[in-house]
Amino acid sequence: MTKGISRRQMLTALGGAVVGGALVSAMPAVAAPTLPMGQVWTPHKLDPVACAPYAHEGYWHNGYGCCYGVFYSIVGTMGEKYGAPYNQFPFHMMEVGKSGISEWGTICGALLGAASAFAMFWGRKERDPMVDELFRWYEKTALPIYNPGADSRVPDAIPTNVAGSVLCHVSVSKWSYETGIDANSKVRSERCGRLTADVAMKAIEIMNAKIDGTFKGAFAKQDSVAYCGDCHGKGKESPLLKGKQDCTPCHSGTDHTQNKFKNHP
Amino acid sequence: MTKGISRRQMLTALGGAVVGGALVSAMPAVAAPTLPMGQVWTPHKLDPVACAPYAHEGYWHNGYGCCYGVFYSIVGTMGEKYGAPYNQFPFHMMEVGKSGISEWGTICGALLGAASAFAMFWGRKERDPMVDELFRWYEKTALPIYNPGADSRVPDAIPTNVAGSVLCHVSVSKWSYETGIDANSKVRSERCGRLTADVAMKAIEIMNAKIDGTFKGAFAKQDSVAYCGDCHGKGKESPLLKGKQDCTPCHSGTDHTQNKFKNHP
Repeated sequence: MTKGISRRQMLTALGGAVVGGALVSAMPAVAAPTLPMGQVWTPHKLDPVACAPYAHEGYWHNGYGCCYGVFYSIVGTMGEKYGAPYNQFPFHMMEVGKSGISEWGTICGALLGAASAFAMFWGRKERDPMVDELFRWYEKTALPIYNPGADSRVPDAIPTNVAGSVLCHVSVSKWSYETGIDANSKVRSERCGRLTADVAMKAIEIMNAKIDGTFKGAFAKQDSVAYCGDCHGKGKESPLLKGKQDCTPCHSGTDHTQNKFKNHP
Repeated sequence: MTKGISRRQMLTALGGAVVGGALVSAMPAVAAPTLPMGQVWTPHKLDPVACAPYAHEGYWHNGYGCCYGVFYSIVGTMGEKYGAPYNQFPFHMMEVGKSGISEWGTICGALLGAASAFAMFWGRKERDPMVDELFRWYEKTALPIYNPGADSRVPDAIPTNVAGSVLCHVSVSKWSYETGIDANSKVRSERCGRLTADVAMKAIEIMNAKIDGTFKGAFAKQDSVAYCGDCHGKGKESPLLKGKQDCTPCHSGTDHTQNKFKNHP
């Protein structure tokens, strides 16, 4: 917490910026960057059942993971059917979302893959309600549902749970905590591989409805977000926060958020 | 929390999957998806000082936000200098990270933009330590540092703080809480616009070192992650969690994580 005036602030107040420890003068104005491919692409309807195996296989393919799996099952399969521009995308980039971005456990990569696919076809005004629907469904639905049959990487049955959060850390850790299954096991990976197919199917269902002009979200704002939003939000008493995630996992005083650095366990 | 056997589990145990309420038979095995552009791209060194204004302007450009800003300042400027394949990327997609993905407050979009750019050029084994370095720097550094001079969108000085987290919700809300500045204000937006330039410069510094073969992370594993990792982790007593984020914001029992649904404030 830097509340006083630091050397850096002092320097920036003088019109310069500190870069790598050296003072450089303020940047000249630059033209807004050009957008060589700034237009959203045309979406095509897809068959969720036909795309699901691509998501599950994509999860395991080269170890690229959940984000790649969902994204390829949408944009990749569109490319296999319709060619350019869909098949020109550098799909390897989508490995970025694996394990919540390089194992950091932030956003569930499957959800990032779906939101990224949405962003190919719809700007934020159209897209945000689609993301809301997908993310709220994810928070509340017992997953995984999909069964890959002979393509399963483990013989085990995969128990389900409700993640309650769109964050990889909470989603995976809560599943492991409730099932007792090692977060580093192949069973947990297969859980995420199947969940990748679930997210892809739900995302395609949302996209198809959007294309048909019948999209209408089924999931209302979470109770906690509505409750907290009464005071915390734009134009409210405390307009100091940002976000649409369910507030409950981190702000309801559960045992999990108590002080784990003293007298624990 | 679904611990019992649900109808869905029963159905999947029988070898089927529930899709849209209907029982479909298990999917046949499919070939692993092809990867039309599955190879990482060749990276080029960039000048962080020259790229920073693109990040800041990119943040404001079309309202595309932080993720687009960082990504364009790296891959876009590479495209302006070297052409294809860099300039062929559908940059509009990167709006996806705005406000932690469609206002959800998950990963800071600036960090997602940088990690996505890294993923263009390096596979996960090479990339993960680069992401660790960038994300740990972000958790610990008082931001924003960058000053756009005449390009600033507000006349105000922008106070800094240490986010302590890579999550947009925590980063923005903590900054607003500590400074008292409305999270919905233009000053807060400019804070994020400048932070976008800061993240771009740090990401480019890391990329340049990686290209030169001199990259070596300066930030060690966080104290909390090391402490908690003594028992929670692969091969440990409790291998039930996933993630590399600083554990402190959510697991140290602060006032912010107490029960906000009873007797609050």
